[in-house]
Amino acid sequence: MARINEHYAKLPASYLFPEIGRRVRAYQAAHPDARVIRLGIGDVTEPLAPAIVAAMHEAVDELGRRETFRGYGPEQGYDFLVDAIRRHDYAERGVTLAADEIFVSDGSKCDSGNVQELFSLAARIAVTDPVYPVYVDSNVMAGRTAAAGPDGRYPGFTYLVGTEDNGFQPEPPAEPVDVVYLCSPNNPTGTVATRAQLERWVAWARERDAIILFDAAYEAYIADPSLPHSIYEIDGARECALELRSFSKRAGFTGVRCAFMVVPKTVTGTAPDGSRVSLNALWSRRHTTKFNGASYVVQRGAAAAYSPDGLAQTTAQVAFYMENARLLRAGLRACGFTVFGGVHAPYLWLRTRDGLSSWEFFDRLLGAAQIVVTPGAGFGPAGEGYVRMSAFNSRASIEEAIGRLRKVFG
Amino acid sequence: MARINEHYAKLPASYLFPEIGRRVRAYQAAHPDARVIRLGIGDVTEPLAPAIVAAMHEAVDELGRRETFRGYGPEQGYDFLVDAIRRHDYAERGVTLAADEIFVSDGSKCDSGNVQELFSLAARIAVTDPVYPVYVDSNVMAGRTAAAGPDGRYPGFTYLVGTEDNGFQPEPPAEPVDVVYLCSPNNPTGTVATRAQLERWVAWARERDAIILFDAAYEAYIADPSLPHSIYEIDGARECALELRSFSKRAGFTGVRCAFMVVPKTVTGTAPDGSRVSLNALWSRRHTTKFNGASYVVQRGAAAAYSPDGLAQTTAQVAFYMENARLLRAGLRACGFTVFGGVHAPYLWLRTRDGLSSWEFFDRLLGAAQIVVTPGAGFGPAGEGYVRMSAFNSRASIEEAIGRLRKVFG
Repeated sequence: MARINEHYAKLPASYLFPEIGRRVRAYQAAHPDARVIRLGIGDVTEPLAPAIVAAMHEAVDELGRRETFRGYGPEQGYDFLVDAIRRHDYAERGVTLAADEIFVSDGSKCDSGNVQELFSLAARIAVTDPVYPVYVDSNVMAGRTAAAGPDGRYPGFTYLVGTEDNGFQPEPPAEPVDVVYLCSPNNPTGTVATRAQLERWVAWARERDAIILFDAAYEAYIADPSLPHSIYEIDGARECALELRSFSKRAGFTGVRCAFMVVPKTVTGTAPDGSRVSLNALWSRRHTTKFNGASYVVQRGAAAAYSPDGLAQTTAQVAFYMENARLLRAGLRACGFTVFGGVHAPYLWLRTRDGLSSWEFFDRLLGAAQIVVTPGAGFGPAGEGYVRMSAFNSRASIEEAIGRLRKVFG
Repeated sequence: MARINEHYAKLPASYLFPEIGRRVRAYQAAHPDARVIRLGIGDVTEPLAPAIVAAMHEAVDELGRRETFRGYGPEQGYDFLVDAIRRHDYAERGVTLAADEIFVSDGSKCDSGNVQELFSLAARIAVTDPVYPVYVDSNVMAGRTAAAGPDGRYPGFTYLVGTEDNGFQPEPPAEPVDVVYLCSPNNPTGTVATRAQLERWVAWARERDAIILFDAAYEAYIADPSLPHSIYEIDGARECALELRSFSKRAGFTGVRCAFMVVPKTVTGTAPDGSRVSLNALWSRRHTTKFNGASYVVQRGAAAAYSPDGLAQTTAQVAFYMENARLLRAGLRACGFTVFGGVHAPYLWLRTRDGLSSWEFFDRLLGAAQIVVTPGAGFGPAGEGYVRMSAFNSRASIEEAIGRLRKVFG
């Protein structure tokens, strides 16, 4: 009798993006001439930078020639990429990492879904609400929770609620927790943690012997140079934090697939016999057992994002999206909306109007302005009453969207 | 207190390939002029086929232009690849699959490590011995076994021993089992399951309500057209089997990374309440939650392996490696070795001589003939007394290796 993993049944049907798609299709069928502007899914729209394109072409040619062909690469990533990461993402901000503390992967979604495997099934997990759903779903699937209650919350998680009062940056919990997921700049709220906030998290984690899983997939969008880009800019973080980074939003790699996770050798957890175990050793074992390295062509492309040309071109792309965000934010404010985020992140977190729910406001924006957003309730109960708006689009579409918003709400 | 996954501690240190590397480096340091021939790791050596190179270039260019840029793709894989798989790998052999029964991934190592997540932690797992280590390690890491005994076996697994008597194709077990991993053509023994053997497995699985995880990563190497390439060529397999396929050995993708898993909607497992649950729905949930699709460039390359030119070119590569295998097999037999495999697989499974252990024979081959192989004991206790030899190399190296073998053993 093939007994299945019973914990999958605790997840509700995957609802958010299919339901958005269903409503948009229905609207378009009824209004075939409407030009819908999609500010929902957080997917980049600018083409790959020329330096990256050139590097990928070169890599493809290498694989096509006998003398330069490469088969299996190191599971942890090629030195040419790992060294570029160490130098540009860390050493330049005063953080020293060893090469074997960096693990290149095919995406942060995979890393953030897989990292929970390192912890005991008894580990208590803390997540924010609203939250990137993968943190929650991957722990539910592993069996760390009971089924969700009527409020959509899973008994077994510690929820840290983001509100306007705390600027969507909740403080560390009082109750005992093994692991906390933090995302800054935040998806979905677009807010960013300050140095002081991160210092409180690191102090808490060290005092409680907890682990911080720090998702910095959007760090390239931080505009204020005084804000930390890496949690390792905080003293003591090397003892308690893992960091996730991605090329998806920093270099337009959502379809190319490359990311990495930093696991310092100084981060340890506790075995049942009380001994301390290196998370670096555990992740190395996981990574080499269940993963076979990111594509060589992709890694060459990622490394090119750090070349002088690649840096200039990708920085300009980020600046382009951030100007979109600035325009959107200003346009929304001019219409009297209460808006969060969009300064150090490509996402805006918009309070609905007239007491509308997330989905009601979604329908109103679609019907009145032909703009697609993501209902905040899809990111957790605390997202109710908000929608997420993405700045990934052409300038023309952003300006058109602002014009429509002004017409409807201005 | 961050409690870690205690099951990782049950795994011995990753030993096999690091230890091979250590011994080869030591030998080369002592014999700097020796030209070592590597027939150990199963990695391809021929460059990517021209049709694949062209398709990947085109895909890179598409991503570099605004009009043709693509971000996130479908997690399950693009239609252009899924449809090519359905047509060439299945329909041409009489197997009809729906598009949503195929899940494109970045590698069979990932798929074979991840698939165990679908089953209960209480599920009883059967593996062959010798075995591809990922099947074993991923289940140990999930907590389905106790620590290994002194014989290297994990209490909790059902071991199916491959021997010369059963042609390294053990029969289905008598004891109750939830899930069995089968690999044919087999890594490491290079043997292949006959239609009659697969029929017995499918009949057993249906009678016992067990699931077969059928790893067909080497199916392209099957030379006899009457042998099944897919388990779905066996009646009833659509009710009990998942199939893993890879582009690694069929199209030289070990560094490019693409594979797929077939999960028919008719395969079900049992929930704790006795209800039947579709494994397709579970895998779809797993795949969409923890994976974000294989790289677009890679999927275009994989699809090109099915174009008329791509098929001709990759078929010629497989034939080239198989001629290597034929030459090696004949050379070894001429030296009086007992050899298995190498007819429908790129691996030869060689009995050691003079009662030497796997590692002793490894040392002898390295010292006397400067040939690197993989000790069979690295694939499980039943691999002791054998070594695996790979046919992936240039023709000149294969001929040189045969000459050396003849000189030492002939």
